Amino acid sequence: MPGGAGSPGELDWTPVTTIHDTNLRGFASDNYSGIHPEVLAAIAAANDGHQVAYGEDVYTERLQSVMAQHFGEGIEAYPVFNGTGANVVGLQSMLPRWGAVIAATTAHINVDEGGAPERVGGIKILNVPTDDGKLTPELIDREAWGWGDEHRAQPLVVSITQSTELGTLYTPDELRTIAEHVHGHGMHLHMDGSRISNAAASLGLPLRAITRDVGVDVLSFGGTKNGAMLGEAIVVLNPEASRGLTYLRKLDMQLSSKMRFVSAQLIALLDGDLWLRNASHSNAMAQRLRAGVEAGLADGSIRGVAFTQPTQANGVFATLPDGVADRLRASFRFYDWDAAKNEVRWMCAFDTSENDIDAFVAAIARETSAA
Amino acid sequence: MPGGAGSPGELDWTPVTTIHDTNLRGFASDNYSGIHPEVLAAIAAANDGHQVAYGEDVYTERLQSVMAQHFGEGIEAYPVFNGTGANVVGLQSMLPRWGAVIAATTAHINVDEGGAPERVGGIKILNVPTDDGKLTPELIDREAWGWGDEHRAQPLVVSITQSTELGTLYTPDELRTIAEHVHGHGMHLHMDGSRISNAAASLGLPLRAITRDVGVDVLSFGGTKNGAMLGEAIVVLNPEASRGLTYLRKLDMQLSSKMRFVSAQLIALLDGDLWLRNASHSNAMAQRLRAGVEAGLADGSIRGVAFTQPTQANGVFATLPDGVADRLRASFRFYDWDAAKNEVRWMCAFDTSENDIDAFVAAIARETSAA
Amino acid sequence: MPGGAGSPGELDWTPVTTIHDTNLRGFASDNYSGIHPEVLAAIAAANDGHQVAYGEDVYTERLQSVMAQHFGEGIEAYPVFNGTGANVVGLQSMLPRWGAVIAATTAHINVDEGGAPERVGGIKILNVPTDDGKLTPELIDREAWGWGDEHRAQPLVVSITQSTELGTLYTPDELRTIAEHVHGHGMHLHMDGSRISNAAASLGLPLRAITRDVGVDVLSFGGTKNGAMLGEAIVVLNPEASRGLTYLRKLDMQLSSKMRFVSAQLIALLDGDLWLRNASHSNAMAQRLRAGVEAGLADGSIRGVAFTQPTQANGVFATLPDGVADRLRASFRFYDWDAAKNEVRWMCAFDTSENDIDAFVAAIARETSAA
Amino acid sequence: MPGGAGSPGELDWTPVTTIHDTNLRGFASDNYSGIHPEVLAAIAAANDGHQVAYGEDVYTERLQSVMAQHFGEGIEAYPVFNGTGANVVGLQSMLPRWGAVIAATTAHINVDEGGAPERVGGIKILNVPTDDGKLTPELIDREAWGWGDEHRAQPLVVSITQSTELGTLYTPDELRTIAEHVHGHGMHLHMDGSRISNAAASLGLPLRAITRDVGVDVLSFGGTKNGAMLGEAIVVLNPEASRGLTYLRKLDMQLSSKMRFVSAQLIALLDGDLWLRNASHSNAMAQRLRAGVEAGLADGSIRGVAFTQPTQANGVFATLPDGVADRLRASFRFYDWDAAKNEVRWMCAFDTSENDIDAFVAAIARETSAA
Repeated sequence: MPGGAGSPGELDWTPVTTIHDTNLRGFASDNYSGIHPEVLAAIAAANDGHQVAYGEDVYTERLQSVMAQHFGEGIEAYPVFNGTGANVVGLQSMLPRWGAVIAATTAHINVDEGGAPERVGGIKILNVPTDDGKLTPELIDREAWGWGDEHRAQPLVVSITQSTELGTLYTPDELRTIAEHVHGHGMHLHMDGSRISNAAASLGLPLRAITRDVGVDVLSFGGTKNGAMLGEAIVVLNPEASRGLTYLRKLDMQLSSKMRFVSAQLIALLDGDLWLRNASHSNAMAQRLRAGVEAGLADGSIRGVAFTQPTQANGVFATLPDGVADRLRASFRFYDWDAAKNEVRWMCAFDTSENDIDAFVAAIARETSAA
Repeated sequence: MPGGAGSPGELDWTPVTTIHDTNLRGFASDNYSGIHPEVLAAIAAANDGHQVAYGEDVYTERLQSVMAQHFGEGIEAYPVFNGTGANVVGLQSMLPRWGAVIAATTAHINVDEGGAPERVGGIKILNVPTDDGKLTPELIDREAWGWGDEHRAQPLVVSITQSTELGTLYTPDELRTIAEHVHGHGMHLHMDGSRISNAAASLGLPLRAITRDVGVDVLSFGGTKNGAMLGEAIVVLNPEASRGLTYLRKLDMQLSSKMRFVSAQLIALLDGDLWLRNASHSNAMAQRLRAGVEAGLADGSIRGVAFTQPTQANGVFATLPDGVADRLRASFRFYDWDAAKNEVRWMCAFDTSENDIDAFVAAIARETSAA
Repeated sequence: MPGGAGSPGELDWTPVTTIHDTNLRGFASDNYSGIHPEVLAAIAAANDGHQVAYGEDVYTERLQSVMAQHFGEGIEAYPVFNGTGANVVGLQSMLPRWGAVIAATTAHINVDEGGAPERVGGIKILNVPTDDGKLTPELIDREAWGWGDEHRAQPLVVSITQSTELGTLYTPDELRTIAEHVHGHGMHLHMDGSRISNAAASLGLPLRAITRDVGVDVLSFGGTKNGAMLGEAIVVLNPEASRGLTYLRKLDMQLSSKMRFVSAQLIALLDGDLWLRNASHSNAMAQRLRAGVEAGLADGSIRGVAFTQPTQANGVFATLPDGVADRLRASFRFYDWDAAKNEVRWMCAFDTSENDIDAFVAAIARETSAA
Repeated sequence: MPGGAGSPGELDWTPVTTIHDTNLRGFASDNYSGIHPEVLAAIAAANDGHQVAYGEDVYTERLQSVMAQHFGEGIEAYPVFNGTGANVVGLQSMLPRWGAVIAATTAHINVDEGGAPERVGGIKILNVPTDDGKLTPELIDREAWGWGDEHRAQPLVVSITQSTELGTLYTPDELRTIAEHVHGHGMHLHMDGSRISNAAASLGLPLRAITRDVGVDVLSFGGTKNGAMLGEAIVVLNPEASRGLTYLRKLDMQLSSKMRFVSAQLIALLDGDLWLRNASHSNAMAQRLRAGVEAGLADGSIRGVAFTQPTQANGVFATLPDGVADRLRASFRFYDWDAAKNEVRWMCAFDTSENDIDAFVAAIARETSAA
């Protein structure tokens, strides 16, 4: 704040009072968490003085080089507000008006974006059922056909999620195989990387190794679920696969005026290893949760819980005995995944503590042994 | 941050370095400014622990009552990311698919949103030229006709901006007259209140007196240009005039997951008088700028500057002698408004200091006397 | 044509020459056929003189009463150009901007409209795989959930096709059960009746008995595939389920200026029994084709052909031995349905003759015995 | 119709009865007229037998060469249903998602298409007021700016109407000047040629001389208002200016299944001189009307009528004394153009007879002398 005469900084003020329990955490979603202190500090560091609005500030410029450290030269990063925005704007930039996107039925773009891809993006989604949220060349080919037939929305992009909405991972080999298959059809490959950091952390690989190096053309890079307040970036890894992003971001209402504060958050995550620390931690907490439940199953302290997916990132999927989910939710918030099967999803976040996990495993034991 | 075992808060970290000149300010836009420290403090106060995502947090709940203090009971406030989002989502909620909006030709929705109202909202804008950015019943009636004729996009909403894009103001009487006229036609009234605080401060009236009390149905309440990091709210003053906002905000990609941090900013502005202090200050700085230039014109130290609009809020519009604008911009950034006429726009922000103004007036004197 | 002085009707002219083989017919689609002579006569009867454009003509007025003879009082019929237009405009009128439609994966709206429902209509399609193109309450319930959750496109309409894209039929009981189920969820029921006449003819029931009487809310009534030149109608059976059709038809570019000629075609089909004669005939030809092949299979003259769907309307679906389809196509045009399975679709039209069928069965025998 | 056994052609049938006055004509619109008999004969000539649907028929193929006779080699013609469809689909093919179209405020795309360009096409229209419906380079430049600024919908196409909605004409020189100006800005030129035949007839020039030869890139060629039942064509004169028309026509619901009947109509108009005969006739009728009124004004038999536009095509625009319009409409239907000014539009059609004109002039004399 300016210190000169007449500065508003001289006025008295009362800060907003904290009105929530800052120690309460659950397993509902990684976006129930707050802001990592380093991210908050980065916002503060970018404050004061004037910066050109709408992305011509020095932080957004700096973000380009920080992103290039991870993804290599020649990429472009476009900060946006949220994951739906990153996906829809990115996909629009990859598609003509007649284009369609092949995606897993469980993909966020298909089930969790309120129809934004269709309504805002004018995009047809050709969805393919999967067991584990992962596409394969064979699954892709169920919808990869009909080019040149004007009656069919033209499949020109395949979108995959890494890590998937089911907490599973694509290996680099799987990704490379998919990318080659997609490119062989003349299509492009989009990755919803809302949790790309979790994937890289789990695989022990640089971000580049599971994106650009394996053939991903455009990436939605997720910050919000990994410790940011809000902020994602569309990262164009192959500029030939994307067109008009500057315009599309604006007309899709994802252009921030004070963009420096979004870019600063992403810098905080990526210029250093905060992205990795946060993701590794949330992954480790998911492993601790799974291990704790498995140990309970082994020693009989937990009964009737079964895992429905491998735990490869920061989410744990399990089925519970009747009634257990609701009793557990009296203390720990989490979501049903498939209520008909008593299947639940437990998400760990950057701020989940070992104590949180241990208390939750104890509660699971208490509620399932009571069942 | 949690303090328990395994908390990521225990790790060492290096903060993002400030890489810009925090003392440099110009007159380009009120969104070149940063975050007011009380707003930043509010973000910090809302941090830590888990809160339900997507608006079911306690800060967003609290925001409703804070808004109700200003606008009265029965209103609904929907935080969104930015002004374009507030306008488009709000207008969509007021219109069927065949609706059109009557607005001044200079309206932000018509000229500065990249076609978002048309492309995302499916909204036809019927624009009317004005001298000062302000509509009147007579101007509205140039486009308020043709109901029932399917060939004509149906004019069902009038949108006005307060304060206008030209730094002018509607008086309460003017607003009431417009609202009655609009309602008399069976239409609804939308207000783009990106700078509504500046208007209220200038008029010395409560926010309600120039919105709900005069018949505005839906308001885009602006936070970003008045000291927030990012955050606006669609405020539904007349719930009968708006439908489906919850769904529209999501499908238009304006739904924040960690909404507590957007709501906390708006609370910081509105739960107390920060909104008024910031707006009064930026208005006063515009008055100081105008008075300084007028004094210079009177005493001959400034030559050839003419004002093109009254200075009623935080923007000053003027024409300059040839070449002056570019020379001034060597030290102070600002925008041409109508380059063909040498007309420029000088915006003041919450953080503009008296020193900033005085230095700028001195520079204007230097550059115009040199002309 | 006017006979007065200066009338252009007095000029000499050379008619367009017929440049195609008017005796060649195949089994590709019922829209490969031409115009039934009674329909063409109706166009001619509506000619000459001036009629108010855009639907205020006496033929469109008359169409309302003709439709009411079939569907009862209180319905509204909106002529449009084509089936995609009828479906998209009709569905848009049934849905808010956040609505979704549940349909069979094989539905024309899902696979054959180039994404028009999504792109023009802003409609999310929630598709459900079926064996025979027919939805059931159980299949509908796979997607009928999530009301009130803004992340989910809201399922508010179910669309079924009668007869289906697979040549199968819903019985009145099945339709009634679906309608009750759909209405029980607070949704509405749309029927794509591109071949509704074939369904009614096959079931031996009035049109009303399989539409309005069983609870269909909005019907796309098909004329083109049943002998019209071009012309379909959106028939609103339940006016409470549809809103703004007049406007939507125009803004979706389905409003004909010389509408009298579209309406006259529909009158030709429906004011009398031409709709039924044409549909009965094409159905009978499909039965003759199926019976002919079955007889050949029984007596050994045809080998390796298997039917994949019951033949309930005017389409026959079958698998053929390798290579047979391409050899048959040297003489008779038809489409692969699922090339991977050697599955083909044979459609009969109002103008398919018994000779056409007999020649085709003979060719099938020739080509399959040669295999 | 097939003559074989079982042919539906053998059945008895009753034709649709003519239920309108075939001798009644007015001056409301050229689309109040019917089908020219040569066009109707062409539809009949294209009937019977099967033709590939969706444009792969021999008539649509033939249309390409007929169009090439008029517009030269290398063009592409895409038949569509109506003028709004031709305009919106054509413009979409010329624009990226962020594009805008500069057009006269009176342009059909701006005022008479129910918002279809915005809603279906996602197109922003930047409209410019004109006196006579005609753009000029100076008028174009009021909106031709801001390229590269993402806040501004990007002006990439200029659309002009020939003859205009006000019955005026662009000369070839005016067109060439506009085209050079437009192309000099890197934009493309679209022409709404709903009445292009009237323009060519009036100017005494081939169609090519006022379209391709002067630099028009994409043309909406109008058939409906010049004697067709329904049928327009998007004619791509410069294939580099248009992309994806095949897909766009389908997804915008303008793809006819039995396209042969649309193409045959356009062939009837263009393969020979029917287009010219019809247009010349309607133009001549407008001249006769104007001359008749002018003579009446000169000899005092008509009073108080003033013409507001030159009569260069088939429309006459005039102001009338109070009350005259309504009295005239008791016998002859026509539309107000600007009711506030007592301005009316009188359109002549291909079937307007000299007797019609003379009777109308007599009525004008009767009603104005009575005034």
